[in-house]
Amino acid sequence: MTQTISINDSGRLQLTPLEIPSRLLLGPGPSNAHPTVLQAMNTSPVGHLDPAFLALMDEIQSLLRYVWQTENPLTIAVSGTGTAAMEATIANAVEPGDIVLIGVAGYFGNRLVDMAGRYGADVRTITKPWGQVFNLDELKTALETHRPTILALVHAETSTGARQPLEGVADLCNEFGTLLLVDTVTSLGGVPLFLDAWGVDLAYSCSQKGLGCPPGASPFTMSARAVEKLQQRQSKVANWYLDMLLLGKYWGAERTYHHTAPINLYYALREALRLLSEEGLANSWQRHQKNVEYLWEGLENLGLSMHVEQEYRLPTLTTVRIPAGVDGKAIARQLLNEYNIEIGGGLGELAGKVWRVGLMGFNSRKESADQLLAALRQVLPK
Amino acid sequence: MTQTISINDSGRLQLTPLEIPSRLLLGPGPSNAHPTVLQAMNTSPVGHLDPAFLALMDEIQSLLRYVWQTENPLTIAVSGTGTAAMEATIANAVEPGDIVLIGVAGYFGNRLVDMAGRYGADVRTITKPWGQVFNLDELKTALETHRPTILALVHAETSTGARQPLEGVADLCNEFGTLLLVDTVTSLGGVPLFLDAWGVDLAYSCSQKGLGCPPGASPFTMSARAVEKLQQRQSKVANWYLDMLLLGKYWGAERTYHHTAPINLYYALREALRLLSEEGLANSWQRHQKNVEYLWEGLENLGLSMHVEQEYRLPTLTTVRIPAGVDGKAIARQLLNEYNIEIGGGLGELAGKVWRVGLMGFNSRKESADQLLAALRQVLPK
Repeated sequence: MTQTISINDSGRLQLTPLEIPSRLLLGPGPSNAHPTVLQAMNTSPVGHLDPAFLALMDEIQSLLRYVWQTENPLTIAVSGTGTAAMEATIANAVEPGDIVLIGVAGYFGNRLVDMAGRYGADVRTITKPWGQVFNLDELKTALETHRPTILALVHAETSTGARQPLEGVADLCNEFGTLLLVDTVTSLGGVPLFLDAWGVDLAYSCSQKGLGCPPGASPFTMSARAVEKLQQRQSKVANWYLDMLLLGKYWGAERTYHHTAPINLYYALREALRLLSEEGLANSWQRHQKNVEYLWEGLENLGLSMHVEQEYRLPTLTTVRIPAGVDGKAIARQLLNEYNIEIGGGLGELAGKVWRVGLMGFNSRKESADQLLAALRQVLPK
Repeated sequence: MTQTISINDSGRLQLTPLEIPSRLLLGPGPSNAHPTVLQAMNTSPVGHLDPAFLALMDEIQSLLRYVWQTENPLTIAVSGTGTAAMEATIANAVEPGDIVLIGVAGYFGNRLVDMAGRYGADVRTITKPWGQVFNLDELKTALETHRPTILALVHAETSTGARQPLEGVADLCNEFGTLLLVDTVTSLGGVPLFLDAWGVDLAYSCSQKGLGCPPGASPFTMSARAVEKLQQRQSKVANWYLDMLLLGKYWGAERTYHHTAPINLYYALREALRLLSEEGLANSWQRHQKNVEYLWEGLENLGLSMHVEQEYRLPTLTTVRIPAGVDGKAIARQLLNEYNIEIGGGLGELAGKVWRVGLMGFNSRKESADQLLAALRQVLPK
């Protein structure tokens, strides 16, 4: 080993071991993970083709089918964050020229528009003010007008806290041979969701909200109908990392190497799903609903009002209107610095207008709401 | 919350908490993580825009510049595995129609070919038998012939254990205005690497080999010259998740939200880089070299021979020829099941012909080599 170049030490920081403040994460995500989940993640990694790991992948697949209420064989966790899983649905479902109709009523609808365009889709949109949802008549008219290959809707809009009802949408899609693609990032685990009964063809989520697991390994599923479209593609999936024809062989019977999975995150995800399965899906949904109603009441008692109509309000994430004359950013900063509580600000149309408060997964507890309400009582102007 | 659909419990597994066997990972990766790194990863997550997390991102960037020996401002960790970081180099550097010349002497060269094609590149290749490397004359001729926009080489071919020398390649590239893209997945941290001195424009790596961190957050860097090409693109980067124009704003001064980072993996990566910085890069390179030479000697004493000529052999990963008449898969299985030691099999051209033995990061220790040699002494036919 001869080497004549001398090493540049300018980036060689002399650091102490990691010290991170302990926060109560009540923003739009990530939320705190259950201690058992953190502990599982700490287990020493094994190989991505180790029989013990392959068995764990099977468990994850089965549990994901349970929490999503689907029988889709192609139900896996993508090795990236929720955004990667979102991109996976688009990358695999869209062929250049496909008409993709996207319901935009928030930031994540717009993200779908941007992504689908990058994959060559002929993107059409329908829009609503941020915080509202589409009704069946509006969707029907849009389907008739655009006759899309894919209709993409955000079930739980993380930027607005609105829940888009999905019952009956698939019946409309069937009339036009349209695949239904759904963002469940902020609903999975915390909000009733029946993918098969509702006829959803493609869905994605994340690990760090309703599932209560650190971010980085993200649920993805596609129906037999969507797989059929994938198999009949004229062009390769324009994304190697997220190509389900390749990933399906790693998660499926072949066990063909594709990439080195983020092993420890899968440990954590398995553990989070195990805890959710132990609690039971119906219990988890009810817990989220009960605790958020308690939060809403507490916020109203402080004189605050919610941005979304109660019927369409998410139990996982609440947008709270910032009262006139209050500096929303300063309040959030004070909560973080003085109380170690994180809440989120508004995005896009709602920037400066709302706070976003999440009660998700492990954090959907009365104690979390109480802690936030007590702190708000201190920091809000009287 | 009315709901008339009943919950299907078929996927609701009743599982015990995670139990995973403890393995010594001496395959092509992942390798075992340092206990301190695992411990750091176990820290409760904070938000991806928390000031404490943003400070940690800066530390990671600085330390990555150190281990890669580059001053590139755009040096970050991608929120995915090494394959995602690989795809990030292609997605950001390639515009449809660009001529991309790829040196293929193993599995990962071929993967680059597949990826570059998906991004619309006009792909040209030069090839070598697996286990060999390209010399400057061969590269010069190929550059003259193809006049590519990008030359992609694999510095450390994880499928063959060969180290492609990079000194002098950039001088050739400069003659033709060609960007130099390099795979350092199996070299970063364990093999001398001087990105700036060697004139590398785009590079990627992974966390779980030379850096000794669990997989899932992956080093990525691009030079000012490569950033300039990115900024002058006629088309959007055909990958939203990996678009450096967006990611650069999250990792840079703007701190614009892009996606929720895999927080805990960044904790682990920061800690792994901190330990490497504490040891010092030169010491780490020497440690890898010293321990692998000890391993080679031990393997030779067992009558085994290495696949790659010593001059080009990687210190991180060794391909060992499977002796005639020996069932390589059965030996690997026995090592795993009876000794909890993982080694890898061959890929592609080398399938069934070699084992792949990694001594990387935390695992590059005399004890690891001894443990493997002792086990091999037991399981190899006398």
